[in-house]
Amino acid sequence: MKAVGIIVEYNPFHNGHLHHAQQARAESGADLVIAVMSGQFLQRGEPAFVDKWTRTQMALDAGIDLVIELPYVYATAQASDFAKGGVALLDAMGCESFCFGSEQGQITPFLNSLQLLTEHAAEYQAFIHEAIQTGISYPKSLNNAYLALTDGQAGFADLTQPNNILGFHYLEAAQRLGSSIKPLTIQRIGANFHDPLTVGLPIASATGIREAFFKGTSVEELSTYMPESSISSLKMAEKEYGKFGSWEHFYPLLRFTILREGPENLKQYAEVTEGIENLIFQSAKTADNFENFMSLVKSKRYTRTRIQRMLTHIYTGFTWQMLHSFQLPSYIRLLGMSKTGKSFLNHKKKNISLPLISRAADLNDLMGKLDIHATTMYLQGIESVQLKKEFTTPPIYRG
Amino acid sequence: MKAVGIIVEYNPFHNGHLHHAQQARAESGADLVIAVMSGQFLQRGEPAFVDKWTRTQMALDAGIDLVIELPYVYATAQASDFAKGGVALLDAMGCESFCFGSEQGQITPFLNSLQLLTEHAAEYQAFIHEAIQTGISYPKSLNNAYLALTDGQAGFADLTQPNNILGFHYLEAAQRLGSSIKPLTIQRIGANFHDPLTVGLPIASATGIREAFFKGTSVEELSTYMPESSISSLKMAEKEYGKFGSWEHFYPLLRFTILREGPENLKQYAEVTEGIENLIFQSAKTADNFENFMSLVKSKRYTRTRIQRMLTHIYTGFTWQMLHSFQLPSYIRLLGMSKTGKSFLNHKKKNISLPLISRAADLNDLMGKLDIHATTMYLQGIESVQLKKEFTTPPIYRG
Repeated sequence: MKAVGIIVEYNPFHNGHLHHAQQARAESGADLVIAVMSGQFLQRGEPAFVDKWTRTQMALDAGIDLVIELPYVYATAQASDFAKGGVALLDAMGCESFCFGSEQGQITPFLNSLQLLTEHAAEYQAFIHEAIQTGISYPKSLNNAYLALTDGQAGFADLTQPNNILGFHYLEAAQRLGSSIKPLTIQRIGANFHDPLTVGLPIASATGIREAFFKGTSVEELSTYMPESSISSLKMAEKEYGKFGSWEHFYPLLRFTILREGPENLKQYAEVTEGIENLIFQSAKTADNFENFMSLVKSKRYTRTRIQRMLTHIYTGFTWQMLHSFQLPSYIRLLGMSKTGKSFLNHKKKNISLPLISRAADLNDLMGKLDIHATTMYLQGIESVQLKKEFTTPPIYRG
Repeated sequence: MKAVGIIVEYNPFHNGHLHHAQQARAESGADLVIAVMSGQFLQRGEPAFVDKWTRTQMALDAGIDLVIELPYVYATAQASDFAKGGVALLDAMGCESFCFGSEQGQITPFLNSLQLLTEHAAEYQAFIHEAIQTGISYPKSLNNAYLALTDGQAGFADLTQPNNILGFHYLEAAQRLGSSIKPLTIQRIGANFHDPLTVGLPIASATGIREAFFKGTSVEELSTYMPESSISSLKMAEKEYGKFGSWEHFYPLLRFTILREGPENLKQYAEVTEGIENLIFQSAKTADNFENFMSLVKSKRYTRTRIQRMLTHIYTGFTWQMLHSFQLPSYIRLLGMSKTGKSFLNHKKKNISLPLISRAADLNDLMGKLDIHATTMYLQGIESVQLKKEFTTPPIYRG
């Protein structure tokens, strides 16, 4: 049995995700698709629109065979750590290949870029350092350094595109791991891009879908952009929780936490650097809602995503010290499986190089306890009373 | 001008408080009454029923001449530290006497008890230590030790009564300060006690009044037990905030904080001792409201008051380290004054031995910043949007 891996958030699952999963299977010729999926908090530094169990259901119903949780420490990290966690888990699962969507659409430019940066690592770092000194954001600095290095030559990946950047980090992570996992990419289809493969499948971004919902579009009306099964799952979640996750809903607890901690304590949380703790504290004093708060905290030095990641870590109490205590994933948390996925686990168990965890009670190291903690913090934010859900929800099975 | 001091909470102000203030004036023969009053959190470890400004209004309208804030660090502390802060402030204000309500009603038994315990300090400590070893609460241990020492002899204060205990701590604090302030006491009149002085003044305890309100009694209906002016102030506060302070209202934020911090971090907060952090954490996981939470946390080792003080400090983020960094008050925060009070301040300014602070902006040491912080935390709990109130409210003047 050959497996192809994908790294996903499904926040929420939509037609573009369906296309990605189908293409990953087709391109790789694999017998099953394994998705490493973020948990309750996401890479953009946001609480998930809907909990990880609902998103697991969506994935299984759309044909994913195994859903593995990307631990909090990677799921909420900057691109390189996000990629490291994801690729390490796919590698540990014994995937022969992994497949990501990119604006580039071809794998060769990525391989060229990786080789270039590997061979000119010191030069690249010097360029980055120089760019950061001018006061621009880290992602922009990376990009400037890359442009300086490629110097207009053809054949390299365009690393100004967000999915290309992430894809590049996947390749880099695989290289650093010394993994033999084979990278594949498919052309990403977005809201403004018409791909012949998607006739009859209107695509909207997950961000667009969430924004539409929070502006008053009903779950029902979102069905143009999402599989019917995903709509059913969303409706069930809406019935259970009465609300979907967003910083607006989480803001009263975030604000209280910021005001309670004060600037001195805020510095200890992961990604909070260089005096921004005062700005965060002062802004929380004034701002009655999250958008106002963000408009006060934003600066050209930090992207919105970076600031939101700081806020996520403040909200959950995740410190620099914790962040620095992790290297590679220590377990594989199984969130869901299809019949094929179950069969894969039965046949390949011996090839899986990390402990396979089906019950939260078996998560007994700090990395695992943080995933349980993230669920507690998430459920508090959406005012759920089902705080034990992490322990009472077994892996979801779609036979 | 002669001043008598009283140490109060006014949570809320009622007829018993009115009686106390009037008797203090009469017994002392003073020209004015100075009240040192707790701020937003109280000695029983609870958020105030109504904010300190409203309670200051009530005090002034009922004839108090100066209202001084008892800093958070003393207001939320065990009896001996509460007494130390209060008496030190009255002493610093230049009061000639202070007057407390007691079940005892006479000062001589207190003086006798103080002398006894001073002369047998080592023996007393040994008795306390012995009692604590049996697993009973600290207040109960104190009491057992005291009973062992007095051994049934007459002429000593009955330190099984709550107001006698507090009164004893006041005398002890004055002695330790080396203050020449003269102690006075009046017979405390309670809900079940009819005193000839209070004909026409029905008395209910502040606890009773709060409980009646939270069980559905309207502010209007409470007017039997409170001066008309206090009722007016309560009504204004009700209009402004829409709610009164109680742990039930504060519980969602308290619970989130407990769950976010986890047992290891909880240990750092003042009064949290000896493994109770696990019980607090586990109880917060389960309990959806404060009463359920308390029923899970209560034990014979700790009084409800003691546990509530731990919760107050967890809620505000007040640590053991902070607690241990304070000795005596470093400022006098003026909350309100009558015409007589203002005149006293003008004439006696040079006799006041601590900086007199009228504006929060002038509070610049840790003790003062904690008072500002306590207000922020309090206003978050009652969901007020007026977070700047600490800075925009000048001392209240009733001319």
